[in-house]
Amino acid sequence: LCLPAWADRATDEPITPISPAQVSNPELVELGKQLYFDPRLSRSGFISCNSCHNLSMGGTDNLPTSIGDHWQQGPINSPTVLNASMNLAQFWDGRAADLKAQAGGPIENPKEMASNHTLAVEVLRSIPEYRASFKARFGNEAITIDQVTTAIAAFEETLVTPNARFDQWLKGDDDALTEQEQSGYALFKEIGCTACHYGPAIGGKSFQKMGLIEAYQTNNPAQGRAGVTGKDADRFMFKVPTLRNIALTYPYFHDGAYWNLSEAVDVMARLQLGRQLNDDENARIVAFLKTLTGQQPDFKLPILPPSTPETPRPEPFPEN
Amino acid sequence: LCLPAWADRATDEPITPISPAQVSNPELVELGKQLYFDPRLSRSGFISCNSCHNLSMGGTDNLPTSIGDHWQQGPINSPTVLNASMNLAQFWDGRAADLKAQAGGPIENPKEMASNHTLAVEVLRSIPEYRASFKARFGNEAITIDQVTTAIAAFEETLVTPNARFDQWLKGDDDALTEQEQSGYALFKEIGCTACHYGPAIGGKSFQKMGLIEAYQTNNPAQGRAGVTGKDADRFMFKVPTLRNIALTYPYFHDGAYWNLSEAVDVMARLQLGRQLNDDENARIVAFLKTLTGQQPDFKLPILPPSTPETPRPEPFPEN
Ligand code: HEC
Ligand code: HEC
Ligand code: HEC
Ligand code: HEC
Ligand SMILES: [Ca+2]
Ligand SMILES: [Ca+2]
Ligand SMILES: [Ca+2]
Ligand SMILES: [Mg+2]
Repeated sequence: LCLPAWADRATDEPITPISPAQVSNPELVELGKQLYFDPRLSRSGFISCNSCHNLSMGGTDNLPTSIGDHWQQGPINSPTVLNASMNLAQFWDGRAADLKAQAGGPIENPKEMASNHTLAVEVLRSIPEYRASFKARFGNEAITIDQVTTAIAAFEETLVTPNARFDQWLKGDDDALTEQEQSGYALFKEIGCTACHYGPAIGGKSFQKMGLIEAYQTNNPAQGRAGVTGKDADRFMFKVPTLRNIALTYPYFHDGAYWNLSEAVDVMARLQLGRQLNDDENARIVAFLKTLTGQQPDFKLPILPPSTPETPRPEPFPEN
Repeated sequence: LCLPAWADRATDEPITPISPAQVSNPELVELGKQLYFDPRLSRSGFISCNSCHNLSMGGTDNLPTSIGDHWQQGPINSPTVLNASMNLAQFWDGRAADLKAQAGGPIENPKEMASNHTLAVEVLRSIPEYRASFKARFGNEAITIDQVTTAIAAFEETLVTPNARFDQWLKGDDDALTEQEQSGYALFKEIGCTACHYGPAIGGKSFQKMGLIEAYQTNNPAQGRAGVTGKDADRFMFKVPTLRNIALTYPYFHDGAYWNLSEAVDVMARLQLGRQLNDDENARIVAFLKTLTGQQPDFKLPILPPSTPETPRPEPFPEN
């Protein structure tokens, strides 16, 4: 037997390391990646999933609210797609059960990609290389929106970010974190952040009230989970966001109102825990949070197959 | 000596093969690649060079005219950046001498990225990883717009597309082209397309009148080279576009009015050469043109360094 000298901490901790993606169907993932980057799923021909969940930028757009079709302002901050497969449900209010259920939404949302499923599928069907890929993956050339969302979800399942410094430490490498970072993690547990932010994604596992102890001030009209359940008790319940890659996913909160991680941490301590952090405590927690940046997407820029004369044309502007 | 059995055709032909990029400074190219993909060079934080010259789509946006800041409609079709280093000058009217001179333009164009050079440089200076990269490349941390455009141009120099089937044939591999494709090339030379479309990029080497024999009908107000020289004789003189990767760079012509390559070829034959092609002739030339798709960009999606609290914030929407 050949074991490392250090012990694996992971089993004792409320946070567990992220495992690399297990890819069982790489060709399906490859197809999903093309679709994720393909702006022809939007009516304008300009907006892809990657426009708002930019994989060069932590799987977000780093804007308070997104820019959609015709530069419409989105209603809420775009969450990261990184590690989203670990969420108990998708969207801030959890209204989609999983990644596959989610992926059909933006394509036909008039404020996002502004297409519809019939049109999106018609575009793909007009492109021989896509027909061949769908046939190879699904056994027929039909191309359905169900197949499209299956492929996109398969790609998104691979968007995990293992091997953060924090995970190296969790796995027993004492030198992977500084003293300050370790004491930040200790404080994060001690004061109760882990009541909501736990599991491999350090969030994503429950809905919780934003403003538990003290109300959150915002102009954003989102009501959270109440919009799904219709229950008054669910007002302002949001899915607890992952803290993985939190240094990359600014601005923070569902309204994207906070750009500074240090300020976001102060807001959380005050509103969720009734606690005023001093500067040292704040710095320690921020130092810990910055160790949560894992391996970012590591793949070739996908090359998209060209349209044909049969492809429905994009409509970027009203007809002249 | 060990030579292939076939002879190199290249020296006798008006078109020469594209050579792979010679990269003398890979780190500078890497920095340029990040900048090319970085939407923080735009005021909104949403638009990068890659938005309009999408390297997944032949280095274009595949739209008649581009979508710029706040969804403004651009004035002219976005040309491919692939093989643009071979052009005698940049832009349809050649108003920029080279790639470096070109790259500063879109950043401060209010209809494109809508930033300015001071702001763009301020954004980059606020990001430690960029400061370190510029210091390593240029010997100081100052970060100037001159350094920014030098890096972007160095990246663009690598965007050549060697090894098209046509180039394999040029280099002597007789089986690389079908009979139809070879006869299409013969016809392309015979009727005089190579008077304007020649050299390694099959274009890009001269300005020529669009509508030499018969006028081109368009609603697009662009006047071409006359806008640069002020000479009436230069009205409707445009830089001859490259035909490399022409199957990917639809829609065609400076107004992006033609989606179908076959129709674009008919227009050219008629307007530039006074010649009506029959169906067979048209099909042969189109078949030849489709052999010009070369190796597309082949690199990892770049990961961008995160902003900091000092980074000027993007302005995607007017202040509320
Ligand atoms: C115009 C911007 C925009 C586009 C385009 C877009 N999204 Fe989103 N996405 C958002 C916003 C905003 C939300 C949050 C909406 C909400 O929670 O109500 C979201 C939520 C998500 C979520 C849920 C993440 C979580 O933690 O809850 C996933 C997954 C996702 N999008 C994937 C995609 C995919 C796949 C596509 C393309 C098919 C796509 N998005 C296109 C803006 C966009
Ligand atoms: C009672 C539950 C709860 C506790 C305790 C809690 N959080 Fe949160 N956290 C949430 C919820 C819910 C959100 C999303 C709120 C929103 O966006 O409206 C959130 C959001 C965040 C965000 C922003 C994430 C993003 O991507 O926008 C950070 C950072 C954060 N929490 C850190 C902490 C820290 C540090 C602590 C402890 C000091 C903490 N949280 C304690 C529930 C909690
Ligand atoms: C909003 C759309 C848009 C953005 C953003 C944009 N471009 Fe362009 N680009 C165009 C259009 C349109 C033209 C043609 C303009 C003309 O010829 O008058 C062009 C021309 C060019 C050319 C000349 C190609 C040729 O053959 O003449 C190059 C090179 C180029 N752009 C590179 C870039 C770089 C580098 C960036 C980012 C710094 C960038 N572009 C950003 C739309 C855009
Ligand atoms: C007298 C010069 C000249 C001749 C001869 C000529 N071309 Fe062109 N070609 C041009 C110019 C100039 C343009 C750009 C016109 C514009 O966009 O307004 C162009 C554009 C094109 C385009 C569209 C490129 C793009 O990316 O938009 C194609 C395709 C093309 N030519 C093919 C041909 C073929 C095939 C022939 C022969 C049948 C031919 N050309 C003959 C000068 C010429
Ligand atoms: Ca210790
Ligand atoms: Ca965010
Ligand atoms: Ca074009
Ligand atoms: Mg497009």
